[in-house]
Amino acid sequence: MTNKTGKLIGVGVGPGDPDLITLKALKAIQAAPVIAWPAGLEGPSLARTIAAPHINEDKIEIAIRMPMVAERFPAAQVYDEAALKIGAQLNAGNDVVVLCEGDPFFYGSFMYLYGRMVNDFSIEVIPGVSSIMATAAAVGAPLASRNDIMTVLPAPLDEETLFLRLRNVEAAAIIKLGKNLGKVRNVLERHDLINCARYIEHATMDNQSVKPMCDVIGETAPYFSMILVHKRIDAWK
Amino acid sequence: MTNKTGKLIGVGVGPGDPDLITLKALKAIQAAPVIAWPAGLEGPSLARTIAAPHINEDKIEIAIRMPMVAERFPAAQVYDEAALKIGAQLNAGNDVVVLCEGDPFFYGSFMYLYGRMVNDFSIEVIPGVSSIMATAAAVGAPLASRNDIMTVLPAPLDEETLFLRLRNVEAAAIIKLGKNLGKVRNVLERHDLINCARYIEHATMDNQSVKPMCDVIGETAPYFSMILVHKRIDAWK
Repeated sequence: MTNKTGKLIGVGVGPGDPDLITLKALKAIQAAPVIAWPAGLEGPSLARTIAAPHINEDKIEIAIRMPMVAERFPAAQVYDEAALKIGAQLNAGNDVVVLCEGDPFFYGSFMYLYGRMVNDFSIEVIPGVSSIMATAAAVGAPLASRNDIMTVLPAPLDEETLFLRLRNVEAAAIIKLGKNLGKVRNVLERHDLINCARYIEHATMDNQSVKPMCDVIGETAPYFSMILVHKRIDAWK
Repeated sequence: MTNKTGKLIGVGVGPGDPDLITLKALKAIQAAPVIAWPAGLEGPSLARTIAAPHINEDKIEIAIRMPMVAERFPAAQVYDEAALKIGAQLNAGNDVVVLCEGDPFFYGSFMYLYGRMVNDFSIEVIPGVSSIMATAAAVGAPLASRNDIMTVLPAPLDEETLFLRLRNVEAAAIIKLGKNLGKVRNVLERHDLINCARYIEHATMDNQSVKPMCDVIGETAPYFSMILVHKRIDAWK
């Protein structure tokens, strides 16, 4: 009998299509006795849904439930409690996989667990296909190429910051749209970039939708949406 | 007997670790009778090496060989010829997979084939794990989080452009280092960001190496290297 402490593994499960999970993620999920996953206060976890075909019935599961609001930083208490539960499993010698939508370290909530646990436990991160790469594939146009400068802009930033940071880049991904869609439209119009912008909802999922930004109406967008901007809109030609 | 034209499929095979390929990429590689891959003028193809465990012996293979120089844009003639060879297979009814290191649309050479063929053929892109996500996992620190602005900067840009574009971002990935390493070091020193920068070679490969930028000497770096900068170096704490 050994008392070896378990390993914490942050696993990127990809953007939505269950087949966009990596072999390495799959093996980690199959091997670990404990699976933790983030979710809203009610309802299913997207990360768990993506990984569901690979999760056996005999797993111990830990839900990390919090308000899913794009603008709000997550409640520290939720992560404190999750770190305690996960830590108890690790101390009992069990490896714990934390399922992460997309990639764990690209604007992912996994960092909140990582920060709480990295000094006390062995942690591995398995990178995943990010929503920005999935979105470019869905649109059918390169994210960036040659010596393009590419910038990722979170839409909750104020309008002047968004305007200034879009000025000198060839390509941008504007993320966390939510109720910021109208503000982002203003910024694109001020730069005369509406016709260089593509809007994508639910990339790689069954309900994927891609539109030119000029056809997108309204002031809000769903949580899983993004705008890609490329000043040379047909850069690949 | 049908005369259906084949489909061109750009497949991201991930950053180097063969297990960082997706199930979707795997299935596409196994199903297609023809596999094309980029390589230098001599020697093996990294993309093909990554995918090798999944390539049957009965495939038709098309090599796309070109000078592997970070700064030089690839020769149009090489892609013109590759597009002709691939097009002939598609017209014969064969699906053709093009293997791409990392993600096909993130600074990938696949765009050169895409641009030549998108008007005449059906093309699908299967996104892959990008080197920037793999690099963040190797370093053990988030690429970007919360409302960070993150920028991808190609090192061949001139020093003043690199300096200006690093000014107002929280996080950056500096790619295509090659013989630009000394210039990039100057830029980081001018911003007093050397201690916020991490250097990575061959992320996820057997010869992976991660160093603080302050420990990196010399003026050149290998093709598969990258610098990650995060102004809040311990942003996850």
